[in-house]
Amino acid sequence: MRTLSSLVRAKCCPFSFRKPFSNTPPYLVYPTKSFTTTPIHHRYQAPKRKQEPIMSSDMTTLKGKPFDRTSLESLMRRRMFYTPAFDIYGGVSGLYDYGPPGCQLTNNIVDVWRKHFVLKENMLEVDCTMLTPYEVLKTSGHVEKFADWMCKDPKTGEIFRADHLVEEVLEARLKGDKEARGLKVEVEEEDPKKKKKKVKSIAVVKLDDAVVQEYEEVLAKIDNYDGEELGLLMKKYDIRNPANNNELNPPVAFNLMFQTSIGPSSNLPGYLRPETAQGQFLNFAKLLEFNQQQMPFASASIGKSFRNEISPRAGLLRVREFLMAEIEHFVDPEGGKKHPYFEEVKDVELELLNRDVQLAGKTKVETTKIGKAVETGIVDNETLGYFLARIQLFLLKIGVDPKKIRFRQHMANEMAHYAADCWDAELLTSYGWIECVGCADRSAYDLSVHMKKTGAPLVVREARKEPLKIEEWQCDIDKKKFGPKFKKDGKTVEAAIEALSQDLREKLSLDLEKEGKIVIDVPSVGDGKVEVPKELITIEKRTRVENVREYTPNVIEPSFGIGRIVYALCEQSYWTREQDEARGILSFPPTVAPTKVLIVPLSSHSDFKPFVRKLSNRLQELGISSRVDDSGASIGKRYSRNDELGTPLGITIDFQSVKDNTFTLRDRDSTEQVRAGLDEIASAISGLVNGTEQWKDVSSRLPKFEGQEVD
Amino acid sequence: MRTLSSLVRAKCCPFSFRKPFSNTPPYLVYPTKSFTTTPIHHRYQAPKRKQEPIMSSDMTTLKGKPFDRTSLESLMRRRMFYTPAFDIYGGVSGLYDYGPPGCQLTNNIVDVWRKHFVLKENMLEVDCTMLTPYEVLKTSGHVEKFADWMCKDPKTGEIFRADHLVEEVLEARLKGDKEARGLKVEVEEEDPKKKKKKVKSIAVVKLDDAVVQEYEEVLAKIDNYDGEELGLLMKKYDIRNPANNNELNPPVAFNLMFQTSIGPSSNLPGYLRPETAQGQFLNFAKLLEFNQQQMPFASASIGKSFRNEISPRAGLLRVREFLMAEIEHFVDPEGGKKHPYFEEVKDVELELLNRDVQLAGKTKVETTKIGKAVETGIVDNETLGYFLARIQLFLLKIGVDPKKIRFRQHMANEMAHYAADCWDAELLTSYGWIECVGCADRSAYDLSVHMKKTGAPLVVREARKEPLKIEEWQCDIDKKKFGPKFKKDGKTVEAAIEALSQDLREKLSLDLEKEGKIVIDVPSVGDGKVEVPKELITIEKRTRVENVREYTPNVIEPSFGIGRIVYALCEQSYWTREQDEARGILSFPPTVAPTKVLIVPLSSHSDFKPFVRKLSNRLQELGISSRVDDSGASIGKRYSRNDELGTPLGITIDFQSVKDNTFTLRDRDSTEQVRAGLDEIASAISGLVNGTEQWKDVSSRLPKFEGQEVD
Repeated sequence: MRTLSSLVRAKCCPFSFRKPFSNTPPYLVYPTKSFTTTPIHHRYQAPKRKQEPIMSSDMTTLKGKPFDRTSLESLMRRRMFYTPAFDIYGGVSGLYDYGPPGCQLTNNIVDVWRKHFVLKENMLEVDCTMLTPYEVLKTSGHVEKFADWMCKDPKTGEIFRADHLVEEVLEARLKGDKEARGLKVEVEEEDPKKKKKKVKSIAVVKLDDAVVQEYEEVLAKIDNYDGEELGLLMKKYDIRNPANNNELNPPVAFNLMFQTSIGPSSNLPGYLRPETAQGQFLNFAKLLEFNQQQMPFASASIGKSFRNEISPRAGLLRVREFLMAEIEHFVDPEGGKKHPYFEEVKDVELELLNRDVQLAGKTKVETTKIGKAVETGIVDNETLGYFLARIQLFLLKIGVDPKKIRFRQHMANEMAHYAADCWDAELLTSYGWIECVGCADRSAYDLSVHMKKTGAPLVVREARKEPLKIEEWQCDIDKKKFGPKFKKDGKTVEAAIEALSQDLREKLSLDLEKEGKIVIDVPSVGDGKVEVPKELITIEKRTRVENVREYTPNVIEPSFGIGRIVYALCEQSYWTREQDEARGILSFPPTVAPTKVLIVPLSSHSDFKPFVRKLSNRLQELGISSRVDDSGASIGKRYSRNDELGTPLGITIDFQSVKDNTFTLRDRDSTEQVRAGLDEIASAISGLVNGTEQWKDVSSRLPKFEGQEVD
Repeated sequence: MRTLSSLVRAKCCPFSFRKPFSNTPPYLVYPTKSFTTTPIHHRYQAPKRKQEPIMSSDMTTLKGKPFDRTSLESLMRRRMFYTPAFDIYGGVSGLYDYGPPGCQLTNNIVDVWRKHFVLKENMLEVDCTMLTPYEVLKTSGHVEKFADWMCKDPKTGEIFRADHLVEEVLEARLKGDKEARGLKVEVEEEDPKKKKKKVKSIAVVKLDDAVVQEYEEVLAKIDNYDGEELGLLMKKYDIRNPANNNELNPPVAFNLMFQTSIGPSSNLPGYLRPETAQGQFLNFAKLLEFNQQQMPFASASIGKSFRNEISPRAGLLRVREFLMAEIEHFVDPEGGKKHPYFEEVKDVELELLNRDVQLAGKTKVETTKIGKAVETGIVDNETLGYFLARIQLFLLKIGVDPKKIRFRQHMANEMAHYAADCWDAELLTSYGWIECVGCADRSAYDLSVHMKKTGAPLVVREARKEPLKIEEWQCDIDKKKFGPKFKKDGKTVEAAIEALSQDLREKLSLDLEKEGKIVIDVPSVGDGKVEVPKELITIEKRTRVENVREYTPNVIEPSFGIGRIVYALCEQSYWTREQDEARGILSFPPTVAPTKVLIVPLSSHSDFKPFVRKLSNRLQELGISSRVDDSGASIGKRYSRNDELGTPLGITIDFQSVKDNTFTLRDRDSTEQVRAGLDEIASAISGLVNGTEQWKDVSSRLPKFEGQEVD
């Protein structure tokens, strides 16, 4: 049986062996066991090491047969769902182009997304630039934290990801130890093509019991070390380049953002954005104004983001340029983060894998109504819960298999630095459970740091229903006497008084009473101590009434990796016909299918041409995409090609069409056909595409056509 | 009267004075007379210097009043159509974010574009990466040619665009000469805020007549000089930094592409794409395969491109990151580039400004049917003509004023290096006629260079109807004797024979006959001359039959600058009410308007709430975007706000609605209202938004409501 890692490598071969451009030729990429990149500030990560690996053979198709990834990928490339970018130049790893069906599928999913979220909830969609100046990402924490630790072999130039290297070497030593102790060791199948380059470090050496325990402790915490700690571990355990035993340079941070320079004189460094979120945060004040100061509200953005992965693998799942759709829902942190429409979703059932279950080392999901989950505190608040439910409804709408969705809560140590809580919608694929949507409570982190940096008021001000009464110590100074006494230092002293804390004010009021003066610290004036006599100042406890409340909203952020969703949907929609395993079908729902209708004239006979044009025009008027296949291939072959493209419906024009203006309409999944006139066919298609009808409704309404597909 | 340049500067003030990030602070940007950037490899340029400047006051609104750009821009910022990106950080020049209405307007225009072009003509839409490796753009010519010539003041670090500098200084000297000769000189109005920084180089000095003529000749050819020539001109005419008379460094090329590095070890340089076209060309072979080898066909792509402008100005017209929609229509270069659907558009009338008219120094456009224009050769071929007509139809569909569109043919010296012919669709704005769509015949340039570089077969192979008979000299060698004679050099000699030209073969056949041997050049073998005796070779004239024709398609490329179209549309759609000039209206057609319907309850009375929800839901079901304004403002104020947002329709819920379930529907442009029940209102809205009905139909069908707007 092939293990997960060998599958991953097998998958990557077609690209990785022909990339003159790539600066990470395959032999330089350290063959780690997991393909996870876990940037310090991470999102969209592949399954964590603590989780069970899922074998490709564990995935079954819609028809319950074993899923075969190789066939699906062959189909997707053959039918140009995607293709390696710059393929004729040898390709660049981690960059893919979407061909016509992939592009249409993506557009349709984005369209459903926009209707489901933006239109439905009146979100404020914005389109912000990808180019982002250094200062912004410095403030957000990305310049420092959005990085992996890398170390270099100074003699060969090879680059390793430090945490992966430590993990790999220690695991190999533990294996060697087990073998030395005569225990059974699971051996990875090696890819014969790569054999020469594979690290052969499994020396059969027995370790001290104490060392074994140390190694195991290190491995359990491997995600938590910083660069310095990883460097120390490498020294302590003498971890070197496994291929040649060279000593490596100490780990340095490799930032995962693509850097560039804006303008002609290269003194304005910038990055390509790693997420669309920052643009939304920076516009918060204007968006609030646009929303007429009403809270809560959400902004949304759909666009490309970029991540300079060290060694992109796993096809469309880990790429360097990807489409995101992100929502930033701004909510008052007080009052339990209620959501006005929570009631509408409270009975939606989700498969939840919460933190406690994972801590107990288990992966058992529990089917829970979201209302219950919020009530019992498994999900922190209504707004978070509302979005989890809405995410699930969206995924079901585009055709994701309900049995292959789960929501997994982040463990404390895997949450990004800004997150207060985070749940991932994971979809089951042959690579395991893949995070496709993250739903994080980013708290007030981003708005606070940008406000602190720029001074822009990224806050909400609202009239209090009940004025707030605050008892406080107030200092009044006699400005007329203040100036003559302190002269040029007047303003500085005044500011120092203004800055006194409540406690200090209380204490000073006693001083003033007792000694007729106060002494305060003003570092920049004289010897740093300033005496203020009671003629110049009064300190009193008074009641202040505050009519306006000012707060920094919290942000709930559902963040969708559209490319991952597209890929997972393709895996989950793929199956083969009972009678012919070579004939693949992609059973996309009509709403998202790239092309809705295939028009097939029986032959290239000129009698059929006007009918082709008539049908095409009619569908165009309805805004329904169609394609004509008037090639010489048999009807069966032509349908088969379009089954692979996921086209749900097919219209055949035959000799009877010429006689009586009727056509057959074919359903992709059942291959059933009905026969009817143009209007009835058009209305059936319209209903199926808009989701108001199912095929069973159509087939019971219109007369069946029993003619066979001619192969 | 304000001149164009002062308007441009005035326009840029709000951004340029608050950009700590910008590496081109305003005083470093040489204040040229035109804001044109004309990269050597250019597209989307602003009007050329040869053309008439259009004064802002020449633009009139839909209602015939003078257009006021300042009011429109104030409206667009206030209503968040767009906003300077990173505004709270001081902004970065040339980068803008689109707020909710700007984003929706853009999305709707893209949607219409997709239906009008991609769906209607079954184009193959692709989505290619923006990150592009060096080699690809090196081959396409962008690395060398997509640049401006810059020179630097070594003492101050100021950067100048060389051609603009030469132009400006020589023009200033000519002005000084005119003044010295006592001729009237047009003086530019200066912006008082910028006065200190303005170059004061107009010295009143009389020049020799010969020098005047030389300067004028240089200015006429200013677009054609390369860096070295510009450097020589600067030396010859002693052109220095006008502000301080410092000598400048010689011009160096400044590439307008943003550079970055792909992967961890920074040895794979890359760029952000300057156009979407290259990705489409690289995928040509796969797209042809996807299209089942049928020609002609078109691919299309919608996405962001990037251009590192030296000194971005003119608001949304010249930016560093912009949305493009590009079509690459691949056509057989033989047979006159016919288009199958040309017949459908041949009567479309266009305003054409052809090359000859421009060469004669005129700007008079001629209204011509596209069929006639192709027939008479003004437009080169049917395919080019077909797209010009389709571009016009698209522009009209989204609401562009038919009187403010013209098509201008490129002059020979302004065409990009790859173009065989090029027409721009220009839209009239207060900045003059602005290129918003380019329609170029790129010939076989791109496919040829990529094929040459990579060896990938970017060609079409098609069966010939009539086999082609070719008479040619063929060389046959006797392989059995060849090996033993030439040993290791056998293959090299064979290849040299294979490479012989037809002329040489003919000559060698005579040698063979006369001397019983031939002598050929094979540089790498022996002394470079190789003798082949007649036992080893025969050379004969024979007839070869070719059944397959192989050719490199030509490309017709309609290329849309969506941001420019959006801006021009806003200018052309803007007007103010007769009774109140402060109340601006954006008369977008319902199809592209950001929000279609405003729902206005008379007050926040709780009786109205269920009706608001009912109306919202109904419109959502119809897929029509609506917004609710239940703020405390008067109905008039609320409508006024939405006139500025371009919302075409408004529904008022009043006390009568509560009684009898009827609502008023208001038309933005006429402010007329009708009153009807929910179903009738919904059906009217549906018809108006989908373009099947006009307001006049609705207002004649449904009873008028004469209640007044309450201000």
